[in-house]
Amino acid sequence: MAESDNRAAAPLLQESLDAPGVLRLTLNRPDAFNALSEGLLDALSAALARIASDPAVRVVVLAGAGRAFCAGHDLREMRAQPSHDYYRRLFERCTRVMMAIQKMPQPVIARVHGIATAAGCQLVAMCDLAVAADDARFAVSGVNLGLFCSTPGVALSRNLGRKQAMEMLLTGDMISAQAARERGLINTAVALQALDAEVARLAASICAKPAAAVAAGKGLFYRQLEMGIEAAYQLAGQTMACNMMDESALEGVQAFLDKRAPAWRA
Amino acid sequence: MAESDNRAAAPLLQESLDAPGVLRLTLNRPDAFNALSEGLLDALSAALARIASDPAVRVVVLAGAGRAFCAGHDLREMRAQPSHDYYRRLFERCTRVMMAIQKMPQPVIARVHGIATAAGCQLVAMCDLAVAADDARFAVSGVNLGLFCSTPGVALSRNLGRKQAMEMLLTGDMISAQAARERGLINTAVALQALDAEVARLAASICAKPAAAVAAGKGLFYRQLEMGIEAAYQLAGQTMACNMMDESALEGVQAFLDKRAPAWRA
Amino acid sequence: MAESDNRAAAPLLQESLDAPGVLRLTLNRPDAFNALSEGLLDALSAALARIASDPAVRVVVLAGAGRAFCAGHDLREMRAQPSHDYYRRLFERCTRVMMAIQKMPQPVIARVHGIATAAGCQLVAMCDLAVAADDARFAVSGVNLGLFCSTPGVALSRNLGRKQAMEMLLTGDMISAQAARERGLINTAVALQALDAEVARLAASICAKPAAAVAAGKGLFYRQLEMGIEAAYQLAGQTMACNMMDESALEGVQAFLDKRAPAWRA
Repeated sequence: MAESDNRAAAPLLQESLDAPGVLRLTLNRPDAFNALSEGLLDALSAALARIASDPAVRVVVLAGAGRAFCAGHDLREMRAQPSHDYYRRLFERCTRVMMAIQKMPQPVIARVHGIATAAGCQLVAMCDLAVAADDARFAVSGVNLGLFCSTPGVALSRNLGRKQAMEMLLTGDMISAQAARERGLINTAVALQALDAEVARLAASICAKPAAAVAAGKGLFYRQLEMGIEAAYQLAGQTMACNMMDESALEGVQAFLDKRAPAWRA
Repeated sequence: MAESDNRAAAPLLQESLDAPGVLRLTLNRPDAFNALSEGLLDALSAALARIASDPAVRVVVLAGAGRAFCAGHDLREMRAQPSHDYYRRLFERCTRVMMAIQKMPQPVIARVHGIATAAGCQLVAMCDLAVAADDARFAVSGVNLGLFCSTPGVALSRNLGRKQAMEMLLTGDMISAQAARERGLINTAVALQALDAEVARLAASICAKPAAAVAAGKGLFYRQLEMGIEAAYQLAGQTMACNMMDESALEGVQAFLDKRAPAWRA
Repeated sequence: MAESDNRAAAPLLQESLDAPGVLRLTLNRPDAFNALSEGLLDALSAALARIASDPAVRVVVLAGAGRAFCAGHDLREMRAQPSHDYYRRLFERCTRVMMAIQKMPQPVIARVHGIATAAGCQLVAMCDLAVAADDARFAVSGVNLGLFCSTPGVALSRNLGRKQAMEMLLTGDMISAQAARERGLINTAVALQALDAEVARLAASICAKPAAAVAAGKGLFYRQLEMGIEAAYQLAGQTMACNMMDESALEGVQAFLDKRAPAWRA
């Protein structure tokens, strides 16, 4: 992408990758480190809603144009409208985008390079999976400006241990991709030139599974996390019984017993 | 154990190990990678219920015969009865076995070698402690057959961070014993020839403590995990006050003050 | 501190460190490994209450005099009053101190050297951040005396994975500072001679942020951890909208846009 040609570009790009079923959404405000302006939040919201009901999309890759993944909210836009009501609605809107990632049936993989800070770090935490370049860095840095990253902290504290999350939130310091991997914020850190291949490998693995099983499983996963273990098992057992009655699962299990590849409809 | 003599063997073996108080349960369907058939689930259920009320048993070791720890449900049996009602009852029965491990007063240590996949990985996750051979491998691989490991995911997501759990559930990929240890699924990975010694070391450590304290502590541990921190502390404080009034604790504390070993009844 | 002069010393020392805003509380019963006697619990309770409403204090450092951080409850005192009612009230009192750390607006950093065992390990787990000397050791060792560390387990299981917490609780074994760091109990382990510098670095980083943002953020962090993610986001969004209307945040964001340092009131 030539940045000089992007002046009138949409804030969000949507591309089908070579692999069928894999859709890439690229945050496309490179001059602003892909800050989440109202326009970009709206574009993300619309795209995620559209994809959620598109059976042709099996995996979403979320990436950033230019030098960074995402630097969080658009501070210029925020500062220009200093009213409590505006901020309340802005954070609600951002939360809806974040929750849309978790609620949609398709897995979402964050492809992280450069920096992921504040609500950009929250985006990484909210994706189902995350792969980063090994020189990527992560922070919830709002506290450096006097704005504690409270909403990013909701996502961060559901990925990292609480002392590790608290250190990031209180200091605003950057952590490396290696630290992010060790603490649970991302799945893998690879060399920048291997980043797309690693994301493609994960995406292909998911695309090889039946969509219904993935959708039911993803939905169940986040619901049961908020339940006591007995209720979680009850719901999971029901989900799995339904899943097993799917044509794909019956064929998949039969193929396993027959020692052959399953003959699933594409 | 000579496998050639095991053709008519029970699906579950029960042996007292050399150490008093330590009982070993061995999943004994080696030709089926110890798949959890209805017969094996029933045998496990009965054995765990019996042990739960046997004060002579202080620690349970759960192991697998042959080349693997456990490969999950018995797919041949499952495939032969394709009805929603059958699957619902099967997963309920499996859940009862899993929860029996958590609810029984004695700690249960998984002794893992070979592979632990799907409901076999769930067994590892549900045990109080787990020690594995360093070439053991773990997966929640149902999604490869179109059957998302929803019930194993309940246990897995209470051991691992959510991104690490989600990666295993979505890809079905194996992880190494080292990765399992780093992510929290197991306590220790050792060389296969050191596996029994490490399990024995942990079991002996637990057997050296008074049974009442271990039982009260284990029960409290899982209950308080599902509470808010204030309610958790209230229940834990009550539990600990009762524990302190035990003859064993009063003697244990007195012995500590007297700089001598406690004189506990065996 | 010359221990020979400390015979009549208060059980808790309070010192302002060189850095303004940083207050150090030192558990000062070195001959008893700083065991949490009723007197020390009362002194801690009073000090934490006083500090919570003192805007001049921005960060609290919790340390131990002598050879250890803290060895837990005072067993001699406990053993002398063997009544259920006494123990119930003692654990309630201890819980109130532990929760006061979490509820106060200022971050509390544990500065750990020597050993932190039983309720001493709980203190580390309850602090917002913890830095340890790399030869420090940690255990919840009550079970060795027949007294399972149920209340420490509440804090421990909210820092570590459950298998790692269960192993410490069942065996009573010590873990190293490196293991404590890898498992999430502490933030950093450094050489003993670098311990004060590392604590000072963290404290200075926090002091450089506006107090209102830190207080609102810390309070929100622990509240939202106990909520479902939707409710957590709703409360976090409200907290952040209020935070953004603070004079400090508006100035901080403006300064960032102007590429200058924020002009905050000291």
